[in-house]
Amino acid sequence: MASEKVLAYLEENHRRHVDQLCDFLRIPSISSQSEHAADVQAAARFVADELQELGLTVETIDLGGHPLIFAGTEIRPDRRTLLFYGHYDVQPVDPLDLWDNPPFEPVIRDGVLYARGASDDKGQLYTHLKALEAYVRTGEELPVNVKFIIEGEEECGGHSIYRYTEENPDKLACDAVVISDTTLYNETTPGICYSLKGLCFMEIRVKGPAMDLHSGSYGGTVRNPANALAAIVASLQDADGRCLVPGFYDGVLDLEADEREGFAALGYTDEILMQETGAPAPWGEKGYTTLERMWARPTCDVNGLVSGYGGEGAKTIIPATATAKVSMRLVPDQDPEAVARAFTAYVMENAPEGVTVEVENLHNAAPVLVPRDSDMVQAGMRALEQGFGARPVFIREGGSIPIVGTFQDCLKSPVLLLGYGLATDNIHSPNEKFHLENFRRGARTSAALMREAAG
Amino acid sequence: MASEKVLAYLEENHRRHVDQLCDFLRIPSISSQSEHAADVQAAARFVADELQELGLTVETIDLGGHPLIFAGTEIRPDRRTLLFYGHYDVQPVDPLDLWDNPPFEPVIRDGVLYARGASDDKGQLYTHLKALEAYVRTGEELPVNVKFIIEGEEECGGHSIYRYTEENPDKLACDAVVISDTTLYNETTPGICYSLKGLCFMEIRVKGPAMDLHSGSYGGTVRNPANALAAIVASLQDADGRCLVPGFYDGVLDLEADEREGFAALGYTDEILMQETGAPAPWGEKGYTTLERMWARPTCDVNGLVSGYGGEGAKTIIPATATAKVSMRLVPDQDPEAVARAFTAYVMENAPEGVTVEVENLHNAAPVLVPRDSDMVQAGMRALEQGFGARPVFIREGGSIPIVGTFQDCLKSPVLLLGYGLATDNIHSPNEKFHLENFRRGARTSAALMREAAG
Repeated sequence: MASEKVLAYLEENHRRHVDQLCDFLRIPSISSQSEHAADVQAAARFVADELQELGLTVETIDLGGHPLIFAGTEIRPDRRTLLFYGHYDVQPVDPLDLWDNPPFEPVIRDGVLYARGASDDKGQLYTHLKALEAYVRTGEELPVNVKFIIEGEEECGGHSIYRYTEENPDKLACDAVVISDTTLYNETTPGICYSLKGLCFMEIRVKGPAMDLHSGSYGGTVRNPANALAAIVASLQDADGRCLVPGFYDGVLDLEADEREGFAALGYTDEILMQETGAPAPWGEKGYTTLERMWARPTCDVNGLVSGYGGEGAKTIIPATATAKVSMRLVPDQDPEAVARAFTAYVMENAPEGVTVEVENLHNAAPVLVPRDSDMVQAGMRALEQGFGARPVFIREGGSIPIVGTFQDCLKSPVLLLGYGLATDNIHSPNEKFHLENFRRGARTSAALMREAAG
Repeated sequence: MASEKVLAYLEENHRRHVDQLCDFLRIPSISSQSEHAADVQAAARFVADELQELGLTVETIDLGGHPLIFAGTEIRPDRRTLLFYGHYDVQPVDPLDLWDNPPFEPVIRDGVLYARGASDDKGQLYTHLKALEAYVRTGEELPVNVKFIIEGEEECGGHSIYRYTEENPDKLACDAVVISDTTLYNETTPGICYSLKGLCFMEIRVKGPAMDLHSGSYGGTVRNPANALAAIVASLQDADGRCLVPGFYDGVLDLEADEREGFAALGYTDEILMQETGAPAPWGEKGYTTLERMWARPTCDVNGLVSGYGGEGAKTIIPATATAKVSMRLVPDQDPEAVARAFTAYVMENAPEGVTVEVENLHNAAPVLVPRDSDMVQAGMRALEQGFGARPVFIREGGSIPIVGTFQDCLKSPVLLLGYGLATDNIHSPNEKFHLENFRRGARTSAALMREAAG
């Protein structure tokens, strides 16, 4: 539990903190658009200045892209160390006409703050700065060493953070990495996400004739790449959605009994799924609930098919080529590279005659599993309960967050994903928003974590 | 055999006829482009005027699109009647920069006439007008009644000719329809095309979630429309290219022994196929030669696949929809509507769970078979031999020419496809051309046909 003094400080200064967050949000730090390069720099300075004012040693690191901000308190060997990660850059704002207010002119309505970056990730990141401020300004002794590594390339796929982490594991050494860039389980239930799926993204290219052929003149004489591609894609999955690539399930960890119980207790129903997706029915691998499939079973999804004529009406051609993008979401302990090799071998071995087939592995991400019983995860659970006044749950995530795997690999520390956003926060979309109550509770959680993590 | 007088006339006037054809080709009668509407009218007038000068009764028929020209000689009941069909409209000319000369400024190089419409169809159609002229100007008695029905919507998919034929079968009544809008078998061998494939064009639309979903957040929970579509498409064909739709082969006429012999004698090799298509290998239904598959076996080809993300790199979505365009080329005596019904039923019965599947029949065309032993076909063969000085062959065509089926259905007459073009004439492409030697021989053939068809 954070001290009364610290919690009182956060309460008394909440309105000012919101105002400061609004200042942060006014900086249009869109990292993928070069015309915003100066804004991205300004956002980096905003963070660096604030950390400096709190007495931290701050470094601005330029690895060729947008700057990394590294900051640290005094590192006392008798204290544990928390490394907070976040990003100060934001997504583009198109389509602008769907915003109810200009994206970089924050507006508060009914306790909700609307602005680009409100939830992803300025608002969430800022909770940690404010928790630290509460310790510093109240004179309360900080129970842990605190480090920050904050990047400006999360939304533009930059590599600075990866390179820096790989090259500077000692500098980033910590007992836990804390990331607030995800969501609560739902509006009333906080959660720690202890597992992320990995990814293996493949492209299959089938080539037939040198050019599109008239399907009357040449139909029946040469193999049609689109028909061939359909056969390849169909061969990847059985009728129940299990992947047929040999070895695909190697290393897949079975769900433990208490995980299945925990998932079931969350009450995620197929009705909710239908409502969220608009799909006509739930579907997937037999023997698993919807939430188990979503969070803990590997998948094999076509992300795109392109071949021949896609316009209105008819065009009678045999397409020269057909391409499929196929991605597999992987679970602990599948190995993305082994999966990519097995996938390639399977497709090539079963490649139809009469066409040329190429398979390319576009990119991979490793799955992540943080032991739920580790000290740090348990500290995170206690902090969430204190911050939100509600019992937190363990959740998993079907998406991939590549930096988490890198932190785990390079720093050998557990990564705590303490998300304060909501699935309905419209991140990456018009009218992005952040509930100020979650901003307040997040800051309390972060302050509590600094205490609970001290052991 | 046409009389010496008629043949001599054609010979003596060949150069003038070529000049007149060039005048015809200078009219940019692109029927699909409204800015060329006046040019299309001018081309219609060109044809109408010339037929009128030859003493025919000419009608210009306006059914709301571009005009139809109907013309006829005196109809004497003691003579047989030939109906010549052709079109005076042409394809667009893009990409213009690939033309060696402006498409509507005809140029002759090495005995080859280059211009849009040279082969398709002004040059071929014009042979019949010049054959008729030879009879009229030499005073040689015309052995048959001659009718022309010439349209200006062939390249823009207009319906005037269909409507007129359906509503006026008596006016178009004839002993044979003669169409020169296809090709010789090869440069030295003329042929009569006695069979055309039909067509059944389908679209399969698979719908899943209401919008593209994040494949991490929802992978494994709902059926992916693209995977489902691939399974549907794969179910249409076995590994040898035979269509698996029940009843698909109902009515398919087996090739007769002499047809197979005739095809084999043509010497079309797989090397030629590879050269023409650039495909890595020939492929198709077992038990049939390449030419047999091309001309006389029904096919099932995907013409287009569209789903999800097709751009560079990765986008990890479950697409909301997936669409395939699938066309089946049909052979005598398959029934396109029965095939469409069987296809729809098969796809719907095997539709994967968890997605919504729709099947639409976009359009059909009936296959055509003209009895090779009919009087008129035999007359056509004799005329070709006289016109080209080479023994003609019987050929088939994998493409569909819908008007041929309409003529056959409404007029109950055999249709003679006497093609004077070459596969290398670049029809619908830049540098369309027509060999003047084939123009000369075509006119001789047409003149000979008027005699041979008289019986």
